[in-house]
Amino acid sequence: MRKRILTLGEVMMRLSTPGHERFIQAGNYDAEVGGSEANVGVSLAYWEQDVALISALPSNDLGRAALRYLKTGGIDTSFIHIGDGRMGLYFLENGAMQRSSKIIYDRFDSVFSHYDGNDLDWEQVFKGVDWFHWSGITPALSASAASLCLRMLKEAKRYGVTVSGDINYRRNLWRYGKQPLDILPELISYSQVIIAGLSDFANCMDIHERDFVTACEKAKAQSPSIQMVSTTERDSVSASHNRLGGILWNGEKLIRSRVYDMPAIVDRIGGGDAFMAGLIYGLLHKTEQEALEFAVAASVLKHSVPGDANFVTVDEVNQLVSGENIGRLLR
Amino acid sequence: MRKRILTLGEVMMRLSTPGHERFIQAGNYDAEVGGSEANVGVSLAYWEQDVALISALPSNDLGRAALRYLKTGGIDTSFIHIGDGRMGLYFLENGAMQRSSKIIYDRFDSVFSHYDGNDLDWEQVFKGVDWFHWSGITPALSASAASLCLRMLKEAKRYGVTVSGDINYRRNLWRYGKQPLDILPELISYSQVIIAGLSDFANCMDIHERDFVTACEKAKAQSPSIQMVSTTERDSVSASHNRLGGILWNGEKLIRSRVYDMPAIVDRIGGGDAFMAGLIYGLLHKTEQEALEFAVAASVLKHSVPGDANFVTVDEVNQLVSGENIGRLLR
Amino acid sequence: MRKRILTLGEVMMRLSTPGHERFIQAGNYDAEVGGSEANVGVSLAYWEQDVALISALPSNDLGRAALRYLKTGGIDTSFIHIGDGRMGLYFLENGAMQRSSKIIYDRFDSVFSHYDGNDLDWEQVFKGVDWFHWSGITPALSASAASLCLRMLKEAKRYGVTVSGDINYRRNLWRYGKQPLDILPELISYSQVIIAGLSDFANCMDIHERDFVTACEKAKAQSPSIQMVSTTERDSVSASHNRLGGILWNGEKLIRSRVYDMPAIVDRIGGGDAFMAGLIYGLLHKTEQEALEFAVAASVLKHSVPGDANFVTVDEVNQLVSGENIGRLLR
Amino acid sequence: MRKRILTLGEVMMRLSTPGHERFIQAGNYDAEVGGSEANVGVSLAYWEQDVALISALPSNDLGRAALRYLKTGGIDTSFIHIGDGRMGLYFLENGAMQRSSKIIYDRFDSVFSHYDGNDLDWEQVFKGVDWFHWSGITPALSASAASLCLRMLKEAKRYGVTVSGDINYRRNLWRYGKQPLDILPELISYSQVIIAGLSDFANCMDIHERDFVTACEKAKAQSPSIQMVSTTERDSVSASHNRLGGILWNGEKLIRSRVYDMPAIVDRIGGGDAFMAGLIYGLLHKTEQEALEFAVAASVLKHSVPGDANFVTVDEVNQLVSGENIGRLLR
Amino acid sequence: MRKRILTLGEVMMRLSTPGHERFIQAGNYDAEVGGSEANVGVSLAYWEQDVALISALPSNDLGRAALRYLKTGGIDTSFIHIGDGRMGLYFLENGAMQRSSKIIYDRFDSVFSHYDGNDLDWEQVFKGVDWFHWSGITPALSASAASLCLRMLKEAKRYGVTVSGDINYRRNLWRYGKQPLDILPELISYSQVIIAGLSDFANCMDIHERDFVTACEKAKAQSPSIQMVSTTERDSVSASHNRLGGILWNGEKLIRSRVYDMPAIVDRIGGGDAFMAGLIYGLLHKTEQEALEFAVAASVLKHSVPGDANFVTVDEVNQLVSGENIGRLLR
Amino acid sequence: MRKRILTLGEVMMRLSTPGHERFIQAGNYDAEVGGSEANVGVSLAYWEQDVALISALPSNDLGRAALRYLKTGGIDTSFIHIGDGRMGLYFLENGAMQRSSKIIYDRFDSVFSHYDGNDLDWEQVFKGVDWFHWSGITPALSASAASLCLRMLKEAKRYGVTVSGDINYRRNLWRYGKQPLDILPELISYSQVIIAGLSDFANCMDIHERDFVTACEKAKAQSPSIQMVSTTERDSVSASHNRLGGILWNGEKLIRSRVYDMPAIVDRIGGGDAFMAGLIYGLLHKTEQEALEFAVAASVLKHSVPGDANFVTVDEVNQLVSGENIGRLLR
Repeated sequence: MRKRILTLGEVMMRLSTPGHERFIQAGNYDAEVGGSEANVGVSLAYWEQDVALISALPSNDLGRAALRYLKTGGIDTSFIHIGDGRMGLYFLENGAMQRSSKIIYDRFDSVFSHYDGNDLDWEQVFKGVDWFHWSGITPALSASAASLCLRMLKEAKRYGVTVSGDINYRRNLWRYGKQPLDILPELISYSQVIIAGLSDFANCMDIHERDFVTACEKAKAQSPSIQMVSTTERDSVSASHNRLGGILWNGEKLIRSRVYDMPAIVDRIGGGDAFMAGLIYGLLHKTEQEALEFAVAASVLKHSVPGDANFVTVDEVNQLVSGENIGRLLR
Repeated sequence: MRKRILTLGEVMMRLSTPGHERFIQAGNYDAEVGGSEANVGVSLAYWEQDVALISALPSNDLGRAALRYLKTGGIDTSFIHIGDGRMGLYFLENGAMQRSSKIIYDRFDSVFSHYDGNDLDWEQVFKGVDWFHWSGITPALSASAASLCLRMLKEAKRYGVTVSGDINYRRNLWRYGKQPLDILPELISYSQVIIAGLSDFANCMDIHERDFVTACEKAKAQSPSIQMVSTTERDSVSASHNRLGGILWNGEKLIRSRVYDMPAIVDRIGGGDAFMAGLIYGLLHKTEQEALEFAVAASVLKHSVPGDANFVTVDEVNQLVSGENIGRLLR
Repeated sequence: MRKRILTLGEVMMRLSTPGHERFIQAGNYDAEVGGSEANVGVSLAYWEQDVALISALPSNDLGRAALRYLKTGGIDTSFIHIGDGRMGLYFLENGAMQRSSKIIYDRFDSVFSHYDGNDLDWEQVFKGVDWFHWSGITPALSASAASLCLRMLKEAKRYGVTVSGDINYRRNLWRYGKQPLDILPELISYSQVIIAGLSDFANCMDIHERDFVTACEKAKAQSPSIQMVSTTERDSVSASHNRLGGILWNGEKLIRSRVYDMPAIVDRIGGGDAFMAGLIYGLLHKTEQEALEFAVAASVLKHSVPGDANFVTVDEVNQLVSGENIGRLLR
Repeated sequence: MRKRILTLGEVMMRLSTPGHERFIQAGNYDAEVGGSEANVGVSLAYWEQDVALISALPSNDLGRAALRYLKTGGIDTSFIHIGDGRMGLYFLENGAMQRSSKIIYDRFDSVFSHYDGNDLDWEQVFKGVDWFHWSGITPALSASAASLCLRMLKEAKRYGVTVSGDINYRRNLWRYGKQPLDILPELISYSQVIIAGLSDFANCMDIHERDFVTACEKAKAQSPSIQMVSTTERDSVSASHNRLGGILWNGEKLIRSRVYDMPAIVDRIGGGDAFMAGLIYGLLHKTEQEALEFAVAASVLKHSVPGDANFVTVDEVNQLVSGENIGRLLR
Repeated sequence: MRKRILTLGEVMMRLSTPGHERFIQAGNYDAEVGGSEANVGVSLAYWEQDVALISALPSNDLGRAALRYLKTGGIDTSFIHIGDGRMGLYFLENGAMQRSSKIIYDRFDSVFSHYDGNDLDWEQVFKGVDWFHWSGITPALSASAASLCLRMLKEAKRYGVTVSGDINYRRNLWRYGKQPLDILPELISYSQVIIAGLSDFANCMDIHERDFVTACEKAKAQSPSIQMVSTTERDSVSASHNRLGGILWNGEKLIRSRVYDMPAIVDRIGGGDAFMAGLIYGLLHKTEQEALEFAVAASVLKHSVPGDANFVTVDEVNQLVSGENIGRLLR
Repeated sequence: MRKRILTLGEVMMRLSTPGHERFIQAGNYDAEVGGSEANVGVSLAYWEQDVALISALPSNDLGRAALRYLKTGGIDTSFIHIGDGRMGLYFLENGAMQRSSKIIYDRFDSVFSHYDGNDLDWEQVFKGVDWFHWSGITPALSASAASLCLRMLKEAKRYGVTVSGDINYRRNLWRYGKQPLDILPELISYSQVIIAGLSDFANCMDIHERDFVTACEKAKAQSPSIQMVSTTERDSVSASHNRLGGILWNGEKLIRSRVYDMPAIVDRIGGGDAFMAGLIYGLLHKTEQEALEFAVAASVLKHSVPGDANFVTVDEVNQLVSGENIGRLLR
């Protein structure tokens, strides 16, 4: 069944070096479109959900190309603001073995970071929406982005929409004078599903615990809206080799997923977003345990697909969960 | 020493997405030439055997390009029919880790599927031939292909030529109204060497056994021409990681090859054809045990070479069998 | 602190097949610049050392392109001779799994092999030099190259410069009538740091031992200038998977480095040169144990970078030594 | 102002050799999506018109990729039928100078050719539609395609929708037993705007005239629905160099456009479709003379853009019409 | 003879779509390094002049790659400031025929735009300098860039260095509150050689004339330092086809160069910079007439070379001036 | 009708920079196979003639790849010698407009240059041969190549085979101590058809004339075997734009072909070889005038095909001669 999911976030141009070339060697760059919340949206739309994105893009051909990509992905782009200014960019160097992958962000001063959403008609925006998703990246970008995020959370509450927030703390953002603890606790207080690990709890909610369940309980005490906390558990053996599982605390108990070995990673960017999309899809259509397994399997498959987006079907994810067809040649 | 091997089969254009891109992402395709029996032929010709192929190609530039490829490989193309119609195609998406590789066949209604071989002079075709090889793909394509295959098997018998048949059952072919059990038992009854696993015995000879030797014995009872049955044993850990060995039943006992670990597969398409070619080469030039080891080692090396064809030399295969130079940098 | 390192060696054009294509398949070649001593120099220059190279290049656009590459790498090219003749080349085919990588050298009769260095002003060349590095490849190329190497070693001694020699015995070179034992012992007798394994000792110093320390002691007895002997220990599981460590004998005892697993090698060419550069850098700036660890870690990282040169920073090597950031995504 | 345009036609995968390579040389193919009516639709959607396409695509990943492309282009794909069968393909070789470009069609037996449109709700399909466009390619493909085309023309009449038909006679299609004269006159009799040249009149309406206006008058006499006839006039100096203008007969007089010189063609495929789209756009938004100039200028710009689709904006077309910015570097 | 030329300017990363693809189509970008003054410097260094550049680059891998490029070009990069901040970028779409080329600048807020040069030791910077070159782009970027430019012009005067200024008015820059007429007249008053056309005189010196010589005379009246004014005369038939000549007023009379037809332009970016470099080289080493011919020929050759930089030798330029070898195949 | 043509010549690896990149910019090279006489052979084989090549290739993978290419082209490679040594190479930079194309040869000391043909059985080689073709490049390479050429000419005479010689004087070859006048007159004296222009007559036959017919008459006087002299007339407007026609003196009168304009050359290498092949084909199958027109048209088409070889069919050449289909899109 089709659900409508709304999300908010910056869409960037992704420029990655080919193969395993380093930045210093690159004579050309693969160009794609990325951004955490857009990646979540593209996954959900690929799974035939109704997805709308609130964002802002420049009124030049780079913005037009990004818009085209989002449309392709089946996303409703009718609320996206087109304005003067620059496109957010990020440059990616794909690591291998002991050499880490590197990202250089070039997103400050983008059209999105100046966007306040005042041109939006909230009734239109939230019409028919079942779920709203935000991430901790948006409030980290600028005061206007943080306040747009808060505004949307308040509207979500008004319209009775379920809210997920991927805390996703990134130290290198947050350059506009505010600290995570100034902003995030209020945003979290409007959310039912939270993606957070121990360091996110520490940095964004001032909860310093070593046990995940205890941290979750404290978070719920701080923000009673929270009904569920989930996160991936990633063991990074090397840039080429990770192991991945997921956990989910449902207010009562901790659920664990199967753990997958990923010894030949193609592209790990967007792995967390694939998990997030899987979890939203799962919670809308499946039991909690199934949702978590679906989310982890979706994320695992993402690591085999180049680019930010997770071009795998619901069937493919379900087959991985049930252990069918793994490694076979499908004719 | 040079032997003459004759084979029959469809030659297709292979269009594969670059790297690990999915079909949905591909902006260009690598174009090569493939087809099970042609792959066997190209291997044997690369090993300096005399190889001729019976096939049919369209009278357009795609057919001409395929012909050129076969000539390059050293195959005698003088019997290949050029006619009106379309080229068989297949599209390939290379998997990675838990994501399987996928093939989309687009070969129905091809020139080959309409070809009946009535223009051939059998005496010319079988002149000097030491070995004839067919596969279960040909009779699956069309009634005319099946009857051409049968005709050639009868001629092979007439000229006293050794015959190998790779049963290679593919459920998605067989669309012209016949079932494998209608056709294959008769074809098998003209063959001395059979490549078949337990599911092939079940689907193509109605022999339902769990033990390979028992199944072989029943097959020989059904088709007394059979002198040898062989197959690869593949353990598919993931799309990137397989283990491969081979077994051969020679009418008396079961021979096993060494098992190889292949944790970083480049291209597994054609792996079975490389085994088949290795087995034919081995049986023509070596002992049975050596032939099996040669076949498995040839197949293992194929998994490191992009494309359908196995561009490795006899020396390279022999070195792998004897454990020389593995992983060294050869200057 | 910046040191000045001088080295001598041939610079070649490197033409490598893309991906894992075999020579027989390649429709295009990646073109880079390589050569053992130049690789050492490029590493050291990338680490902000002052590096000068004595070499010879043809007075055509291929020579000009190589010169441009060396300048880019920050190497002082002012002593490089430009003359009539041909550029040395090498062709590389990247192996995978059980299939070995292959190099075809096409370097005979190059400008470098005819160069005698008689146009050099030695006082200028050695001004401010802290270290001179040579390898066993140069004397293997031609009589004039061998005698230029000897001449430079004598000058190094005159100017009190520390000397390292990477013995690097290659059977396929040495075609001008001399044998390693005719030439190398004298060159080694001017060197303080030697890179050699047991087979190098055997081929180049006539020291046939099974124990590394014993061999080192005999080498020092033969050539009292030797203060240190080091080498990598490489376990080649396959073309894609090696394990690498290093050992160093300092005249008194044997030091061992940590051993690294490298299961997904991108490009192993230049791995030894990266070790050599790391050792020179380490011995100039660190303790012996640190130098060895730095050299091995630099070499490990090289295996993740395409091309001959090791484009990794001192910080990245140090982080690998200290186990930081391995496999993380750096944003 | 936004108008809604409906069109009907087959969508194919386009596989073109890179640069000026011939089929016989190609080791890879650029993959795009094409088809005459889809090209018209993509242009109109790029110009911010509301466009819907009636078509049929296979239920495999190639069909999915084509669908994704159409969505990207902003086309309403909700009426497109997804069914079993094969994707229509065409192979393209780009000519140069005296060497002509070549197309190999591989579209017979496609899903579209078997599609009858019986699953469509015509009221839904024609809701809000201002214009319906068909071409002579559709009725050439199969009896069911021809009858679907006729059905849609009747519905268009019922809903009072303006109709354009690009006669576009192609001898190599029409293989299902019918001749153009059996089918096209009836289809034309439902159309107001016809794209036809003298040979189209001869082949499709049995009107054999040497003068365009006379031919148009006879066509109108035969089919009184016709209000306008237009066509491009192309002077093909070579594959690289064409001259292009357009003419339009409006029932009263003949209008001629400016003629453009195109001496360095990048890709002429889709040039006619770009003209068609320009004419529809022009007739919906401009005067007849302006419409013709817009159509020709749009077609000229298409010849500078690789691929089937005409990715140029209304502003760019208008600037060419008014002679602004030609050949300048726009910063 | 080797002269030392100093220049000042921003170095950008250039990202251009491959072939004639539009931004909306591009799946990858060619990455190079560009910038007007750096292009002038790279040309002069390629012609074996001593060139130093004053600039600022970010302390990340993109900055490092740009630095490497400049070193390769033989430029003295020792004065280049490395600081926190972003790299200036520009995106380029290559036009064809009637479709113009387009540039999207993304250079605001770059490290260079914040750089004030206060860390420079002017005595060091101007040591041995024969010529200083600036362009109108630098003062258009920011107040600090304009004041650094003025500072360097004053130092140039103090050290008796000849100054050239390429006025190069670009409307889309100049966003920091100042107008060209506020800033440029003072900068011009320190310059001996000016590159300006009639619109530059109007925009930057408030001289509104239709005759070039009259404009030059008025400019000299306003700025008595001016000894020479030169400019290219470009006739842009289309994006693919230009004609190019040059004129030079030497205070006394107007000199005209030969005019070249360029009907198949490969890359016109950097054409003006190639002219500028040619003029500086010519004025340092040749007569005025020869200098102008050299400058135009250098610019013409640039249009045949992909990228911003003009990789043609002095010999190649001289041969074009003297009409040798044009269009021959040089073996 | 099929004729058998024998030729002799070196086969080289061709490494060309992509697009219009200069050597100094190239990060990769397109790899093909070339060589004047092999190009003639590949054309003739593509036109379904029986072609055999006498040559020598190295016993390494580069030699194997060249051999594979020749087989693909349908050439009988059974006489090609495989020996130790190096492969001849050439590097190509594609010019544009006023910038000339450049070739760097790297063919000295190749296996071919050392080959004496003493292993050949002349009766076998000349069995069924109708035509023998040699060029002036072979005797320019080495004494052994010159003497092999002479030997083959004597055998050709013995077997009554028609001989063509493309004089093709190249100053930069001829480095082994002999001058063209020492060698070529004797070789010419065995030939019936000569390809030579005025400068070839001067350099290779010491005939210094300004009129082509006079020169031909003197040549015939010197070498009475000569029955025909032909050459292309090329007007090189620029590297991108040539005009091409041909002339043929048949002992009685001068025949001229149509002249073609080629304003957008794709690849001019092999243009002369395409003419040569066309002339041989024409003289074997057509009248003299037709042969000349065929030869010129074949050469014109070659300029539109990338690579050394002329992949155009007899039909395509004939259509150009008769003016059909020029510049049309063939569907």
